Amino acid sequence: MSCNWNDLIRCWMSNRIPSRMLKVGILGLVIFLVLSSPFGVGYAQEPNSSDETESCLSCHASVTPGIVADWQNSLHAKQTPAEALTKESLARRVSADSIPEHLAMTAVGCAECHTLNPEKHRDTFNHGGYQVHTVVTPEDCATCHPTEKAEYEKNIMSYAHIILTNNPVYHSLMVAINGIQDFDGTETSLKDPDEKTNFESCLYCHGTEVMVQGMTTRETPLGEMEFPILSGWPNQGVGRLNPDGSMGSCAACHTRHQFSIEMARKPYTCSECHKGPDVPAYKVYQVSKHGNIFSSVGKDWDFDAVPWVVGKDFTAPTCATCHVSLVVTGDGEFVAERSHQMNDRLWKRILGVIYAHPHPKSPNTAIIMNKAGLPLPTELTGEPASEYLIDEDEMLKRKETMQKVCLSCHSTQWVENQFVRFENTIQTTNEMTLTATKILLTAWEKGIAQGLPQGANIFDEAIEKKWVEGWLFFANSTRYASAMAGADFGVFANGRWYMSKNIQEMRDWLEFKLKEDSQKK
Amino acid sequence: MSCNWNDLIRCWMSNRIPSRMLKVGILGLVIFLVLSSPFGVGYAQEPNSSDETESCLSCHASVTPGIVADWQNSLHAKQTPAEALTKESLARRVSADSIPEHLAMTAVGCAECHTLNPEKHRDTFNHGGYQVHTVVTPEDCATCHPTEKAEYEKNIMSYAHIILTNNPVYHSLMVAINGIQDFDGTETSLKDPDEKTNFESCLYCHGTEVMVQGMTTRETPLGEMEFPILSGWPNQGVGRLNPDGSMGSCAACHTRHQFSIEMARKPYTCSECHKGPDVPAYKVYQVSKHGNIFSSVGKDWDFDAVPWVVGKDFTAPTCATCHVSLVVTGDGEFVAERSHQMNDRLWKRILGVIYAHPHPKSPNTAIIMNKAGLPLPTELTGEPASEYLIDEDEMLKRKETMQKVCLSCHSTQWVENQFVRFENTIQTTNEMTLTATKILLTAWEKGIAQGLPQGANIFDEAIEKKWVEGWLFFANSTRYASAMAGADFGVFANGRWYMSKNIQEMRDWLEFKLKEDSQKK
Amino acid sequence: MSCNWNDLIRCWMSNRIPSRMLKVGILGLVIFLVLSSPFGVGYAQEPNSSDETESCLSCHASVTPGIVADWQNSLHAKQTPAEALTKESLARRVSADSIPEHLAMTAVGCAECHTLNPEKHRDTFNHGGYQVHTVVTPEDCATCHPTEKAEYEKNIMSYAHIILTNNPVYHSLMVAINGIQDFDGTETSLKDPDEKTNFESCLYCHGTEVMVQGMTTRETPLGEMEFPILSGWPNQGVGRLNPDGSMGSCAACHTRHQFSIEMARKPYTCSECHKGPDVPAYKVYQVSKHGNIFSSVGKDWDFDAVPWVVGKDFTAPTCATCHVSLVVTGDGEFVAERSHQMNDRLWKRILGVIYAHPHPKSPNTAIIMNKAGLPLPTELTGEPASEYLIDEDEMLKRKETMQKVCLSCHSTQWVENQFVRFENTIQTTNEMTLTATKILLTAWEKGIAQGLPQGANIFDEAIEKKWVEGWLFFANSTRYASAMAGADFGVFANGRWYMSKNIQEMRDWLEFKLKEDSQKK
Repeated sequence: MSCNWNDLIRCWMSNRIPSRMLKVGILGLVIFLVLSSPFGVGYAQEPNSSDETESCLSCHASVTPGIVADWQNSLHAKQTPAEALTKESLARRVSADSIPEHLAMTAVGCAECHTLNPEKHRDTFNHGGYQVHTVVTPEDCATCHPTEKAEYEKNIMSYAHIILTNNPVYHSLMVAINGIQDFDGTETSLKDPDEKTNFESCLYCHGTEVMVQGMTTRETPLGEMEFPILSGWPNQGVGRLNPDGSMGSCAACHTRHQFSIEMARKPYTCSECHKGPDVPAYKVYQVSKHGNIFSSVGKDWDFDAVPWVVGKDFTAPTCATCHVSLVVTGDGEFVAERSHQMNDRLWKRILGVIYAHPHPKSPNTAIIMNKAGLPLPTELTGEPASEYLIDEDEMLKRKETMQKVCLSCHSTQWVENQFVRFENTIQTTNEMTLTATKILLTAWEKGIAQGLPQGANIFDEAIEKKWVEGWLFFANSTRYASAMAGADFGVFANGRWYMSKNIQEMRDWLEFKLKEDSQKK
Repeated sequence: MSCNWNDLIRCWMSNRIPSRMLKVGILGLVIFLVLSSPFGVGYAQEPNSSDETESCLSCHASVTPGIVADWQNSLHAKQTPAEALTKESLARRVSADSIPEHLAMTAVGCAECHTLNPEKHRDTFNHGGYQVHTVVTPEDCATCHPTEKAEYEKNIMSYAHIILTNNPVYHSLMVAINGIQDFDGTETSLKDPDEKTNFESCLYCHGTEVMVQGMTTRETPLGEMEFPILSGWPNQGVGRLNPDGSMGSCAACHTRHQFSIEMARKPYTCSECHKGPDVPAYKVYQVSKHGNIFSSVGKDWDFDAVPWVVGKDFTAPTCATCHVSLVVTGDGEFVAERSHQMNDRLWKRILGVIYAHPHPKSPNTAIIMNKAGLPLPTELTGEPASEYLIDEDEMLKRKETMQKVCLSCHSTQWVENQFVRFENTIQTTNEMTLTATKILLTAWEKGIAQGLPQGANIFDEAIEKKWVEGWLFFANSTRYASAMAGADFGVFANGRWYMSKNIQEMRDWLEFKLKEDSQKK
Repeated sequence: MSCNWNDLIRCWMSNRIPSRMLKVGILGLVIFLVLSSPFGVGYAQEPNSSDETESCLSCHASVTPGIVADWQNSLHAKQTPAEALTKESLARRVSADSIPEHLAMTAVGCAECHTLNPEKHRDTFNHGGYQVHTVVTPEDCATCHPTEKAEYEKNIMSYAHIILTNNPVYHSLMVAINGIQDFDGTETSLKDPDEKTNFESCLYCHGTEVMVQGMTTRETPLGEMEFPILSGWPNQGVGRLNPDGSMGSCAACHTRHQFSIEMARKPYTCSECHKGPDVPAYKVYQVSKHGNIFSSVGKDWDFDAVPWVVGKDFTAPTCATCHVSLVVTGDGEFVAERSHQMNDRLWKRILGVIYAHPHPKSPNTAIIMNKAGLPLPTELTGEPASEYLIDEDEMLKRKETMQKVCLSCHSTQWVENQFVRFENTIQTTNEMTLTATKILLTAWEKGIAQGLPQGANIFDEAIEKKWVEGWLFFANSTRYASAMAGADFGVFANGRWYMSKNIQEMRDWLEFKLKEDSQKK
């Protein structure tokens, strides 16, 4: 909801309003302000900041005015934790039963977050007499939001860094993408990517490991000061490894320093990481009917309401509605409980994997090993590594949780058929991936390309990259288009058209190569 | 226009407004409400719902609260047909001269639409004592909006399902895209796509055939109930074949259950189907000056006004402005009459076809046959199948209708040159397609690829798919970029760069193949 | 800021507000208007238009109502230059010290701009008794905005037409993209593009040369009238060559006829030309945290404020913030001075070039010549043509100007590391481009492709086009993703994935060709 007192006044004052009206407007405003004075301080008065925070603000209001102003717009600046605790259950934005006394009665300001748990933070340093740390972590946020932190630990996202760097298969994919190639006149060679490149590409979303690497002295407006040198900084990736030992970054979605629930609920936030061809959730949403409704009339919705009332606060889901938010009906009945685990509503894993498969049991997928000894949740030919994956009962339970959201607007038949189509598309895209894989396996077998049998990187040759696009981009995009009914994306944009063309081009390449080979002999 | 009383109150109540102002605000509101009571009921009171609709709402308000709330936001809930009929000619939103008496005096609620024409609807079933049907159709909507329905029947979109499934050439394209491929170690094979896949891909936009396939019993909050089993459901495609024999779905653009004219006029609605590389209208619009104006200042426009006044209600066209809407000047003079036929402003057909050509006479393009006996509006070498296409006079008439929209902001020279450029681009893109086609015809002729001469699917091989991209994506995108002055899209994004590269790659492929062939001999 | 008196009234009158409130609303409005009358005319009264402009409006209000209404919404219609001159320094929107007396006291209307400098304008013609010109130019705008015009002349954009058409290398790229290809059964041939094609593609953004080619007589509502025939018209490209000898078009960003600063500050304006794969600034911005903040909460920002206050008027930068706008802190301290030169904040040139390199000294890059005699700022192997490029000191100065913007929200360490990553990515993308170039040079050397050694167009063959994509699309997109922290775009969307795949495909092609060659022998 656009709600801005400044705007109203500015509107009143601007040239767009005839001058006579304006004069009266100003007069009225003055009368209003005079009249209003005896009513004094009351509900929703902005809380005081702590002395420590006032101390921060005394410099940072001029040193970094942007983020200070940003914070002043936030609920953290406008409500004390004590006030937040008084809300009735459904409307509560904090999940703690109680909040430490010394934090309860002031605004949640700079010092409240940046000086929490100093002993755990290896990035703690003395800054103007305070023990401050730069990197605020889920562990810090859990002081008021413990449920969210606990749920998030079961979310596969919290392991995003570990999954990418500890799994040798995915690590070799990162090398094949980010590594520097050279050409000697005949052959190309590949050297490992530097860490700066990884920080700003894969690890921007997956998260870096932030460590203290020493201290440095900087000239500041207050003279020389000491600051820690942080590796992998800046970063706000979902699986960031923090200097206090925790994983993740709440700021990935709850952008500093406004921490606006409106922003977390809008699809643009998810699109920072879920827009590319490997995970085109946002693009599919955009061409779906839901996305169209959001784009066309979402400006009239209330993105700030807690709980979020279907039909009243919004008339079509955003990403958050289906995957995260507490949603209720106008009668206050649950449609969905708030979840920062997210996968309690997800039964199949459709992205970033060669074949879609039942969701893994553990959020740490780096522990999975298939029968062939590869750290993958399926065989290269598609059979699931079932012992690491959830069973039918769990899948059904999760599916029903999701369906409950759909059913608040759609009939049972509508929803059932939508889900049947999705399961069908999981199957057909897996079949197409198997076909592409068979072509690659043939190439490896004949030695035309160097892959698993040769112990080589399986992602570094042209034909291997084509195969990767088959599942990572096209099969996956097709599944997303099915899941979210963004049909257009699943046909020509990045789906079935390319999936079928890709196989034909792989086949063409194989034929060329085999003929070439046979002519040599 | 954003206009929401709830928002205003919520704004007043929120934390963003200093508390003293808030208190006065609340006081003022109370005084206002007390004062206002004697003025009683008057203009724009919300109409009563019929008893039948009240009966629907008694359950569905809790069973499907989302769509009920959505409908409550709609004009259908806020105005009776009788009131709608009283508007002066230009402001009317209903086109019927009169409306059946039993429908005229209540809101247009659930029952009013879902129980219309029960005898025609093969999907009619007994639901709580009422003869209800699920699928509301253009025939139903025509009760109040007959002109729109009649016009839409002349729109090529109403035949979108028929065109795709009855034309063997286009059907074989669908098979080549959606079919499942297998690989036996040497060759790929292609099997026909399943209908679930077609439903959620091509037919999402083109429309499915919705038929009753029996009845099923479901557990509901009111106990067991019987429902019809519908094939091809859900679907809201523009050429849907309905259980009452009608074609199309008004909900494709006028999204249920808000039926907002604002939404139909915003480009996001068109983008659901017109965004992919085969028909990138939305993407071209976005990078055009018109699209830029819409994105930057469209938030201040009135998308709900009927008629729509150029310069006052909007300052740049959206899709609807040029193709559909009733547009007038501030003096109430016609710029364009409302058209749901749309092609009365379109003289050339530029999308989904090998060569751009004069618009077909009949919206049912499945009846067209070229000299070579193919169901195509041109020969494979570009000559138009003229007897099925409109003549110069009709083209001129349609072009002038469109130009009148342009001329409300642009000079004659500006508009003329824009149209000259567009005709030039139609010609140059057709030339480039002919070049690509010549390469493919050579490949077929030499037997290097299996196409028309061999009686094979002409879309299933890699080289054929490359050729398809040449016209379906690149030539077409270039034409769109020209038509709507979205230049950037027509150069590097998906236009001339790829069109010229595509020909070079086809030529490279042909050279390889021919050499390979000659070496074999 | 959305601020619209009409909306408020319409809101009041609409059905969305209960009727009793409405009645009171109307009553209140009447009382308000009656009460307000004695206050009479005052601040912000709309100025009179000149007699000449009134004369224009007398016809054009009905002939081209759209642009007249558009202008009426503009500040040009609402404030006289004399009033604009009274603003205090930071708030001034005009840069002239004084403004000619005959222009100072009326609105800036049709006649004020379209009759300026008639003797310089070769497109001046007699129109209803006035010496009018169609093409308003930077020279005309400089009457009130001389600083902006002077700065813009140092902006590389002002030379965009000259650079493209006078540099033989870039001209041959344009030919390779826009030219028409034919196929004779064995070989393709390429003919030069026609000018209409160039006008609506490359030159839409780069600008056309607008010349008077004679006069023509047109039928108008006022009878026959004479108009000049303009070549290259319409056009609003940034480097347009104007009939008064000036370069550029202010309307490229300050869209006619609203000339809204809001629009120039929104990223949609930049995206008209900076969205394609060759210069994906907008797409990168969209997936960046900054873009996310703009999309999610930018609706509450004030895009019209001068000066623009960081944190108060906006909480994340748009394109304009970093590259153009006057930005201050809440205390009125400079963050960045307004710049229409733009490159005073740019130290490296990363787009449209084979290798990123220090920014050129002169905005006219057509004067550059590398050691090999090619009109390029680097050798084909990457070494910079240093004498034409700025030195380390100048680079440092520009970098620090840019960093000052970042530092208004971010810490020194944050900003430094961001810039270190960017410089690293410039180096790694240049390395990858060198690898691709080595493959192409080998192909030229062996005569497998026809390029520099053969004196052939270096952009017209399939392998050459692949090479172009390597630097023009992929390396460049990767650099943009780094510069603006739109990580997702630089990995899979159009960055490192394709950059690495492209080299492998070039290598594959070379291997095929070399084997084929050796078999022939």
